[in-house]
Amino acid sequence: MNKMSVTEGSVLVGNKSVMNYVLAAVIQFNQGAKKVLIKARGRAISRAVDVAEIVRSRFLKGEVDVSSIKIGSETVGEGDKKRTISTIEILLEKKQ
Amino acid sequence: MNKMSVTEGSVLVGNKSVMNYVLAAVIQFNQGAKKVLIKARGRAISRAVDVAEIVRSRFLKGEVDVSSIKIGSETVGEGDKKRTISTIEILLEKKQ
Repeated sequence: MNKMSVTEGSVLVGNKSVMNYVLAAVIQFNQGAKKVLIKARGRAISRAVDVAEIVRSRFLKGEVDVSSIKIGSETVGEGDKKRTISTIEILLEKKQ
Repeated sequence: MNKMSVTEGSVLVGNKSVMNYVLAAVIQFNQGAKKVLIKARGRAISRAVDVAEIVRSRFLKGEVDVSSIKIGSETVGEGDKKRTISTIEILLEKKQ
């Protein structure tokens, strides 16, 4: 593993339980990541916010902050099934 | 209605359909609000992001931007039923 891949991590939040993603993020910080991007689409957005809040206020309390939050839209599917879903990206960053 | 109450509005997103909250926000902008705060807790967070995205990219395209997004936690319930839920606040602002 080179240094670049270690300093920035990401977690794509899906339909598993919140704790899966919390642990994935905590492990990445413990392995040396300075930033971890928590990403989600559609209904998993609420869960992504839970993940960020639990990491920040419980597991790595005082060590990690939310440094930016972005929302956006993506088009999924084709033809008649084409629809727009919302996305979120929450950047967690280790305090200096 | 005095000037203060007109320039900043808010919409609390719950379990109704997305379009209810989209229209509530659009109406507030049309009545002269410069900013509308989209708030939600728990599972409604995904819906709040949908509301912000639909207002920004469809109904008031080019007129309104997301100016800040905050996430947090709140404790609800009492005694054994006490639990922590996540919150989101998305500030939509009219472009100058």
